[in-house]
Amino acid sequence: MKLKELGELGLIQRLYEFQGKGLKAGIGEDCAVFSMGELDLLVTTDLMVEGVHFLKELTPPEALGYKLLAVNLSDLASCGALPLFYVIGLVSNTEEDWEYIEGVYRGLYKLSNLYGVGLAGGDLSRGERMMLSLTIIGKAEKDTWIPRSGAKVGQRVFVSGTLGGSALGLMELKNGLKEGPFVKRHLYPPIRLELGQCLAKRKLASAMIDLSDGFLQDLERLVAASGVGAEIELQALPLEEGFIRRCEQMGLDPLKVALSGGEDYELLFTVEEEKKEEVFRLGEELKIKLSEVGRIIPQGLRILQNGRPLEIPQKLGYDHFRWENPFT
Amino acid sequence: MKLKELGELGLIQRLYEFQGKGLKAGIGEDCAVFSMGELDLLVTTDLMVEGVHFLKELTPPEALGYKLLAVNLSDLASCGALPLFYVIGLVSNTEEDWEYIEGVYRGLYKLSNLYGVGLAGGDLSRGERMMLSLTIIGKAEKDTWIPRSGAKVGQRVFVSGTLGGSALGLMELKNGLKEGPFVKRHLYPPIRLELGQCLAKRKLASAMIDLSDGFLQDLERLVAASGVGAEIELQALPLEEGFIRRCEQMGLDPLKVALSGGEDYELLFTVEEEKKEEVFRLGEELKIKLSEVGRIIPQGLRILQNGRPLEIPQKLGYDHFRWENPFT
Repeated sequence: MKLKELGELGLIQRLYEFQGKGLKAGIGEDCAVFSMGELDLLVTTDLMVEGVHFLKELTPPEALGYKLLAVNLSDLASCGALPLFYVIGLVSNTEEDWEYIEGVYRGLYKLSNLYGVGLAGGDLSRGERMMLSLTIIGKAEKDTWIPRSGAKVGQRVFVSGTLGGSALGLMELKNGLKEGPFVKRHLYPPIRLELGQCLAKRKLASAMIDLSDGFLQDLERLVAASGVGAEIELQALPLEEGFIRRCEQMGLDPLKVALSGGEDYELLFTVEEEKKEEVFRLGEELKIKLSEVGRIIPQGLRILQNGRPLEIPQKLGYDHFRWENPFT
Repeated sequence: MKLKELGELGLIQRLYEFQGKGLKAGIGEDCAVFSMGELDLLVTTDLMVEGVHFLKELTPPEALGYKLLAVNLSDLASCGALPLFYVIGLVSNTEEDWEYIEGVYRGLYKLSNLYGVGLAGGDLSRGERMMLSLTIIGKAEKDTWIPRSGAKVGQRVFVSGTLGGSALGLMELKNGLKEGPFVKRHLYPPIRLELGQCLAKRKLASAMIDLSDGFLQDLERLVAASGVGAEIELQALPLEEGFIRRCEQMGLDPLKVALSGGEDYELLFTVEEEKKEEVFRLGEELKIKLSEVGRIIPQGLRILQNGRPLEIPQKLGYDHFRWENPFT
């Protein structure tokens, strides 16, 4: 069977059997978790492949480096962990300019310094197209990290920041725009490390995931991992006015962009009702907008518009092995 | 400046400035080392790129998976560390058969089980050609790991196993041979984890490196990291008779293959003279051939044949960004 028939999810399911023993969390979580004395070690890895995750002509090298580290930091953020250090695999064409590579590392370094996480080493290889692989190691106090799988019926669904800005920025970039708030959101997404760590330390969130492939798809993952469902209030979704206006100018459906647009890197998490107020206070403390957007139900995924269920389009997200290249 | 002008070494040198603070070892060592309470964490990463590190038609998928993990385990072995868990980045063409991918993971899994190290997770992406990235995390008791940089003048140079078999096996594969001792050595190289750990635990080796890019190039790296030189006795190099015979049959210079052929994954290490006997006993205990092949001198790299220096050909190793593809 070919991978395009199997799809990303089918492939992941088949890879479960090769997973090692003795992990606290593994395939299917944002990070793998391994016990190490009084601490838990967390590790996550992400690939960025030229032509799949980025196009060089649309991506300044600093932004590429920034985002490579950011997506990995975001996985640690979604578990509430503290990043320690990372390693990089770089595949590049030998005709590549050093200046581009240097830019990538400058982008990485800038974000590294912001969060006190260090580049520890890596590997280099020739190859036709650029490919970057980053693996980051983090830590958390024993069993304080937040899984995808902890959501319980009745708990509230929260999301940080606003939705869809990164996908809109990508469309602007493709239309030739070089800057602006949405382009910036796409190239330099905010990373919610401090929020994730506070939610973990104060035991405020029962399940958490970061929004990499779109709100709806990542919500589906969280509820699937937890064996529950969710009901989302359309009006409660955090869409900026400027975002809605800009989508309409560009002939886009803001709702579709917000629900299915990837790479927001906001945190989606579930909260016991009695902890809601404390969560809102945490948002004020950190100056991060936190929105209650729905609740956990026994099963299914429902979006309510003025109390009536909206039909959810199938497969709003992105599958690496089945779907068309979003850049072509 | 283009990468092909800079070369792999030039690129690595320029990347030093982006290295994080607070590492016990980083770029330039086989593993990065990070202090974590009473333990040291070691991490290493290796890429395998189709057409650069392997050709699918010459590489059974199990061998590819085995070797991907083996080369990383070998980096841990060369520091004397204990492997814990690893993550994989897999880039594959969507036309790829699941059966090939499954074979790769079966090869990984087989070796994983042998050493009690577990696959913890990974990332998947589409891409034109196959690319695998593996990052492994290991541990060692605080400050017991062995660096490249600890060789001192007067110490003896040791190497495990025999030299050149893997490079010979690759040439046999290219000539259409599918099996035999050298093909097996190339596809399923032995990994010296236990030897590395014993050398570290018993404080027998002052500096160590694994032979990935060829004896001479890796020796050069060890002495450069240590700020010393080395003198090697040609007659002491462990070349099997069968290896010499087979090289001659194929019209190859056995010495050149042994000195410059990569992927032996044997350990090259330095030992205080008074510890030599203990090292030989360890070899007998583990049933691994250990050979004393030379000594550390203040500077330079000399190979002696019957007491007379041999001229060392420049650049016997392999540079990822400057050299020609060894497969074409």
